Amino acid sequence: MPRPRFRTGPTMHDVAAAAGVSQATVSLVLNDAGGARFSEETRRRVHEAAQHLGYRTNAHAKVLRDGVAGMIGFVGDHVATAPFAGKIIEGAQARAWEAGMLLLTVNTGGDPELEAASLEAMLSHKVAGVVYASMYHRVVDVPAVLGEVPAVVLNAQDRKRAFPSIAPSEELGGYAATKRLTDAGHRRIGFINIGAVDDALPAVVGRLAGYRKALAEAGIPADDDLHRPGDGQEEGGYRKTLELMSLVHPPTAIFCGNDRSAWGAYQALGSLGLSVPGDVSVVGFDNQESLAPCLRPGLTTLELPFLDMGRRAVELILAGSPSPGHTELFECPLIERHSVAQPSHLPNRRTGTA
Amino acid sequence: MPRPRFRTGPTMHDVAAAAGVSQATVSLVLNDAGGARFSEETRRRVHEAAQHLGYRTNAHAKVLRDGVAGMIGFVGDHVATAPFAGKIIEGAQARAWEAGMLLLTVNTGGDPELEAASLEAMLSHKVAGVVYASMYHRVVDVPAVLGEVPAVVLNAQDRKRAFPSIAPSEELGGYAATKRLTDAGHRRIGFINIGAVDDALPAVVGRLAGYRKALAEAGIPADDDLHRPGDGQEEGGYRKTLELMSLVHPPTAIFCGNDRSAWGAYQALGSLGLSVPGDVSVVGFDNQESLAPCLRPGLTTLELPFLDMGRRAVELILAGSPSPGHTELFECPLIERHSVAQPSHLPNRRTGTA
Repeated sequence: MPRPRFRTGPTMHDVAAAAGVSQATVSLVLNDAGGARFSEETRRRVHEAAQHLGYRTNAHAKVLRDGVAGMIGFVGDHVATAPFAGKIIEGAQARAWEAGMLLLTVNTGGDPELEAASLEAMLSHKVAGVVYASMYHRVVDVPAVLGEVPAVVLNAQDRKRAFPSIAPSEELGGYAATKRLTDAGHRRIGFINIGAVDDALPAVVGRLAGYRKALAEAGIPADDDLHRPGDGQEEGGYRKTLELMSLVHPPTAIFCGNDRSAWGAYQALGSLGLSVPGDVSVVGFDNQESLAPCLRPGLTTLELPFLDMGRRAVELILAGSPSPGHTELFECPLIERHSVAQPSHLPNRRTGTA
Repeated sequence: MPRPRFRTGPTMHDVAAAAGVSQATVSLVLNDAGGARFSEETRRRVHEAAQHLGYRTNAHAKVLRDGVAGMIGFVGDHVATAPFAGKIIEGAQARAWEAGMLLLTVNTGGDPELEAASLEAMLSHKVAGVVYASMYHRVVDVPAVLGEVPAVVLNAQDRKRAFPSIAPSEELGGYAATKRLTDAGHRRIGFINIGAVDDALPAVVGRLAGYRKALAEAGIPADDDLHRPGDGQEEGGYRKTLELMSLVHPPTAIFCGNDRSAWGAYQALGSLGLSVPGDVSVVGFDNQESLAPCLRPGLTTLELPFLDMGRRAVELILAGSPSPGHTELFECPLIERHSVAQPSHLPNRRTGTA
């Protein structure tokens, strides 16, 4: 079992040192000042250092003196029980706590009765606002009762666009993942999607659009044989990889719609006696911390910026009534590890023996 | 990303069919009647079927009519953000919801200030009780303020024994894991622990005690070379497995103190060209749902009964003031998959070539 980090009253100086920035930068970033002056990357480094070290703002002296400044509700479908989305709660909670507020989490398991009862209870306890979160990026029908408080839809999009939404930019992510492979010289690039296109899930449709855009830019004609709808699980990644590698012209690289599919791809390639990235390059999606760094070789993947997304949702609530319909799409940074190399000559060899 | 199950108003009959038991059994189990009449296994099947199908009790009609019956606080250190302990929240919440109550979760990240503020806020909002949970089994110092309400220490033990504790039976688990291997005929059994014994973590000390007990029962002399303290991560499992397999008399089987270590063992054995279980048998611990079934071959492991433990913690709170010092240790069932076989002749071959 992973072991927690112990907190030891770190200073702003410690955070600056850990993040490799100045104390002024730490102060501005943690107080959400300075805006665009700092890159996503710098802000993430600062927030992660603060989180890692357990750095706390002055709001807490006040909390301990006067009690909690208030509560923000966090209603998630499966978020707190999903194996990887915990960071979305970590980010939301860290931001709330920096303001001396508590984040109260309820997981509805997708049960509408439980959801209704949870929202009713939260409102009756006078929460300052509610974060309405989804475990995976989808279009949701937000309960109208959320109109009574500042509310933000997180990792999802409100069908009626009545509430502000925060979600990852799926198309940019799919584009960046595929471009990483075309830049490495690959021309036969498989894509194992995490669902069927007619599911109309933003992640499924958006990542595919990005994949096609990057191929087009590289002058590579689309080949529907190379796009395989999967199930977002290890099993689907395994099966679809075997399908792709049995093509007369197999891919030299595979973009997997999530890290679990990539894990299946690793296991399938291993069973074929093929190495990553020597024979086949692989790029994932999610940067699931309990998976991507532990694959051998470490998986090059796109990060779902859950920590930042969670923080931002709470920021919008702290800022008062967020503008309806306003949607913020977060860029998914490429996390470079060791699963991408130049194309092998595998396809020629294989077709030579076909 | 995994996809949620959708709830469609199932009946008690559906639950009985899914669990392969009678409706009477479902009714008794879900109402926590019938006590010892039903095996752990039967109760787990019923609860999992009810959870899987989204079966809800009559309490909810009342909730929708009269509003939430109350709230129970759940204070966890890293629970809701841990990659695998979500089931402990699922179980606690399912049981609370069956009684028409909400579970309010706060993750303190191990921060004592946040913990104090969270408890203060929960008490001021008149929670019916508080579950004080740890991400991994350890001895904790429970804040005295919890004396003001029914409180249960979950997946941990109260140092002062002032509060009831619910935890897995580590020694029984370590014993069952090792016995599975001695029963298969193994005599050289490595144990990759999830920490150093002087950490004095119940999981580390208890699983080792169970390992030694099973060896002794099988008349196998202890060999300290075969016990390797690891880190509970894939990396530690990988390194320690390479160490074990480089011994003049390498083990024919390895008991890994958790599934992540077992994953590392699989990858290390693969890198040595050794197969599981053909060359080396492996048993894990945790039955982490996003890991154990996805390893190839599927990992035989011990399940941490988080769903039942979470349910039981809430039951004790619903039952009023639980008796102080009372500790319940939950048995960890063996989950049989495909990573254990009879011993290969590998060690002889290897020493023959040594």
